[in-house]
Amino acid sequence: MIRPVELIERKRDGGELRAQELEELMLGYARGEIPDYQLAAFCMAVFFRGLTSAETYALMEAMIKTGETVDLRSALGRKVVDKHSTGGVGDKTSIAVGPIVAACGVPFAKMSGRGLGHTGGTLDKLESIPGFRVELSTDELIAQVQAAGMAIVGATADLVPADKRLYALRDVTATVDNYSLIAASIMSKKIAGGAEAIVLDVKVGDGAFMKSEADARMLAQTMLELGRDAGREVVCLLTDMDQPLGRAVGNALEIREAIATLRGEGPPDFVELVLAAGTRLLMVSDLGLDEPDARTRVLQALADGSAVEAYERWVHAQGGDPDEAALPTAPLVRELPAPRAGYIAEIGAVRVGQAALHLGAGRQTKDDEIDHAVGVVCLCKRGDRVAEGEPLCEIHARSEEGAASAARELEAAYVLADEPPAESPVVLDVLA
Amino acid sequence: MIRPVELIERKRDGGELRAQELEELMLGYARGEIPDYQLAAFCMAVFFRGLTSAETYALMEAMIKTGETVDLRSALGRKVVDKHSTGGVGDKTSIAVGPIVAACGVPFAKMSGRGLGHTGGTLDKLESIPGFRVELSTDELIAQVQAAGMAIVGATADLVPADKRLYALRDVTATVDNYSLIAASIMSKKIAGGAEAIVLDVKVGDGAFMKSEADARMLAQTMLELGRDAGREVVCLLTDMDQPLGRAVGNALEIREAIATLRGEGPPDFVELVLAAGTRLLMVSDLGLDEPDARTRVLQALADGSAVEAYERWVHAQGGDPDEAALPTAPLVRELPAPRAGYIAEIGAVRVGQAALHLGAGRQTKDDEIDHAVGVVCLCKRGDRVAEGEPLCEIHARSEEGAASAARELEAAYVLADEPPAESPVVLDVLA
Repeated sequence: MIRPVELIERKRDGGELRAQELEELMLGYARGEIPDYQLAAFCMAVFFRGLTSAETYALMEAMIKTGETVDLRSALGRKVVDKHSTGGVGDKTSIAVGPIVAACGVPFAKMSGRGLGHTGGTLDKLESIPGFRVELSTDELIAQVQAAGMAIVGATADLVPADKRLYALRDVTATVDNYSLIAASIMSKKIAGGAEAIVLDVKVGDGAFMKSEADARMLAQTMLELGRDAGREVVCLLTDMDQPLGRAVGNALEIREAIATLRGEGPPDFVELVLAAGTRLLMVSDLGLDEPDARTRVLQALADGSAVEAYERWVHAQGGDPDEAALPTAPLVRELPAPRAGYIAEIGAVRVGQAALHLGAGRQTKDDEIDHAVGVVCLCKRGDRVAEGEPLCEIHARSEEGAASAARELEAAYVLADEPPAESPVVLDVLA
Repeated sequence: MIRPVELIERKRDGGELRAQELEELMLGYARGEIPDYQLAAFCMAVFFRGLTSAETYALMEAMIKTGETVDLRSALGRKVVDKHSTGGVGDKTSIAVGPIVAACGVPFAKMSGRGLGHTGGTLDKLESIPGFRVELSTDELIAQVQAAGMAIVGATADLVPADKRLYALRDVTATVDNYSLIAASIMSKKIAGGAEAIVLDVKVGDGAFMKSEADARMLAQTMLELGRDAGREVVCLLTDMDQPLGRAVGNALEIREAIATLRGEGPPDFVELVLAAGTRLLMVSDLGLDEPDARTRVLQALADGSAVEAYERWVHAQGGDPDEAALPTAPLVRELPAPRAGYIAEIGAVRVGQAALHLGAGRQTKDDEIDHAVGVVCLCKRGDRVAEGEPLCEIHARSEEGAASAARELEAAYVLADEPPAESPVVLDVLA
């Protein structure tokens, strides 16, 4: 039996841990035999010393072994694809991409999480759809993917339980920001969840975990290696999170934007990301398409209405009402006027996320209730030219006080300039 | 109210914490409102980033504020002196120095701890004296110092409770080895305990916390500053812990050696340290002696029998039987013969400490019972010349198996050479 204090000390002093040691550490932790305080010290030592590639892989495998795994290949007889984002502001990509991929005949299954702080969670967004059930058993998940072509569900408690406990611990001990720990956490769930091919969207910028492109590349590279070593196909998109993605930030507002995008009416930056992610998902699927063919199929699914149909089939299968009119709306909508004429040089993603959070769209602590109707719609985006008094964004609020307070936060988020900012794409790079 | 995770993050990123923040952290921890895992992450961040002088002082003050303090000056109307060692193998200095100082008319009061691992604790040693009570109330402590001139007691639960909890946590999270945390821990107890003048014995070498003289100097300097900033007089002795101190290692054996030393029959290295510590204690006492006068008074107390009388008065006052014959003895005494002729080049202090520990003289875990009779007597010390087969040490054991096992450990502790080692003093330096 390992002595956890010796492992902590070795990592603290820059040494390497063996796979067997990391496995005992994680299994002991998941069983409650190794206390939180030893893992907290361990994670802080990892923050300073890092993990080698071998250690990161061993940690991921160890976390997977603390719970159950799903074998979608055996259950469905098909290669199932998954898409995961490291989290940002206004990121409703999976909700649009899933139906596109399903419309193209590729099974899509995703286990997702909830939001905390300024980044929203896909499950929270989906729960703004009346009747939508995010908690499906593994059997229900498989049956739904067979019948409706796709599913997005909450991870069951049995999937990587060590990660759940460890993530909550890292969140309160300032040990989140380490790319080995982030990569092992994300990839353990993806691999335990059974997807064979995964498109990862690694966000970089103000509103993302990874503030610099160098850090984002390091995280992407680490996840690529983990996936490959586990025998999965992985592609990483490096994407911009310096401004909110698309226009809508807030749960029901984002569902509306996803539906609009499936109808071919999405905002340009979001459409760019949806096309890139959809194309990559078809390329790693068992259709075996090359990039031009995959892109053509994605565009076709958007143009011929099959993507919207796939969305309706999916939401319906998961108990929800796919009608846009069924989504909740906020009692008040207020506009924020531009204080002067000029070009929009910046829209601080964190500030917009915080404004939505304070309106009630997110959670400040785990137990907060979410207001699905509220949020922000960025009518203007980076690079747009505005006249003085022209509305920069809409604030969807529960009260006038809430709207006024959000307006102050949003004013600080928008930076206006006389010259247009340099153009920058949403998809910064693709690593495969 | 502070958010602990923000303080952890700031320290992790190399920032500085304010006194008020450290106070809230410690008070919240002592009240059980801030959990162990946040302090574990904090201590590991401190391990890597260190604490500034101001932070170290604030941490010490914050720890003191979590409990009660004793004001010996008001209670006794005298300046009370105290002596503290950072811990080593065979360190029975306080048990000899206390009576010397008391014999010179200077009140001596010390709150002490128990041993864990290869270093023994003064309280454990004293408990080998039949009847000796280490748990005195503050009123009993004061009354005894008034009546018998001195007391050595266990710290009450109310004295720096945050330190007790934090030390236990650091012990299992590999965050002991940081001189700011060590210094704040030691000095918080000394200052809360009420001594106005303190002689600190900072051990350096194989058997000590601080393996290098540079580290020991850093720790000594930190403690000197903390003491002065708190308005106490502090002197640090830097002393050798590369071999056991004196000959005896083990509880009753060490009490016997302390008594022998008070009779003027102590081993040279131990006598050197006792004289140095006694002299410094008289110099910082309200007698206001200079070094030559203080040394003369110490030698006088040893020569005229008053130190032995002070020992007997003290032990008696604290409920113990001062008669050496009352101390427990081990059923077996076995000698370890020198494997060859030569000079003793080294006696590994940790190895001797471990041998005594495994004989039963110490605790491997907090709940272990101690065997007060067993231990090791190093008949020969570093620099001695031995003939082949001449006994290097005595093993005082409970069983033949125990003695044989200890013999193997002790064989590895002794290093013999053809040339005598360079002479080195016990007291390496005095910092004041």
